[in-house]
Amino acid sequence: MSSELGFEVHLNLPYDQSVEKVTAALKVEGFGVLTRIDVKATMEEKLGVEFRPYVILGACNPPLSFRALSANSEVGLMLPCNVTVEELPDGTSLARIANPIMMMTAGKLGEDPALVDVAQTAYRKLENVAKSLE
Amino acid sequence: MSSELGFEVHLNLPYDQSVEKVTAALKVEGFGVLTRIDVKATMEEKLGVEFRPYVILGACNPPLSFRALSANSEVGLMLPCNVTVEELPDGTSLARIANPIMMMTAGKLGEDPALVDVAQTAYRKLENVAKSLE
Repeated sequence: MSSELGFEVHLNLPYDQSVEKVTAALKVEGFGVLTRIDVKATMEEKLGVEFRPYVILGACNPPLSFRALSANSEVGLMLPCNVTVEELPDGTSLARIANPIMMMTAGKLGEDPALVDVAQTAYRKLENVAKSLE
Repeated sequence: MSSELGFEVHLNLPYDQSVEKVTAALKVEGFGVLTRIDVKATMEEKLGVEFRPYVILGACNPPLSFRALSANSEVGLMLPCNVTVEELPDGTSLARIANPIMMMTAGKLGEDPALVDVAQTAYRKLENVAKSLE
C-alpha cells in the first residue's frame, strides 16, 4: 500500500523482528541504515513519558545520495530516506518508507532533471523493498 | 534568507566552528541533535569518492516531536528536522534548516490541525535559530 508520503506495510511480526526484517530488506536494494532514533527510549529519557515501540531509521543508498548531493547540495535537507517501524496494539507492526520522489523533488528541487532521475531510481528500489515485505 | 525548503544562513566561519555554532543555536530553542551524518566521511568510506565537508544533523525538539507523533504517527517519516552545514569553496560555511511547515504538513498530514499547530511552533523556533546565526 502506498500513500503520497510513502509506502506502508503491515508486518505480521513482533516489533523487534520487524525492525530486523525491514533493515535486511533495505540492504538488498543497497540501502544501509546510517541513523536510528529509538523514539520510545528518547521520549522516556527526554520527557519521562511513555510511547509505544517506534523507530526512525535513516536509510541511505550511497551511490544515489552521492549523485543527488553532487547535483544539488540542498537535497541534503531531504536525506537520508526515513523508514519507520512501530508496534501496533495487537503486537504486530507497521513499517513506513518515505516516498523519495516527494522528498527529493520538493519545491524547486523538482526543477533539476538530475534529482528527478535519482528520485525515480530510489523510488523503484524502495518500492521493491516494500513489495518484498508484503 | 529562506526558501520553500528551509532557511539558509551564510556563516563567515570555518566548517568545524560553524557546526558547533549551529548546534549551540539549536539548543537555545530546545532542539537537540539526535543524529549526525558526516557526508564526506560516509562517501569516502562507502564509495571511495571525495566530497567536501558536509554534515546532516537530525534536530529534535522532544516536546514538539511528542505532540506530533501522538497526533499522527505517520509524521515520523518527516522527523527529525534536518539541518545541514557545508564548507564553501572560500573556506566559509553554509547552513540550511529544513522548513518544518513544508515537512510536517506534507500531503494529507496538512489536514490535521494538531500537526499544523506543531509545525507552526517549530517554524517560529527554527526561524529564531536562523536569525541568531545571521
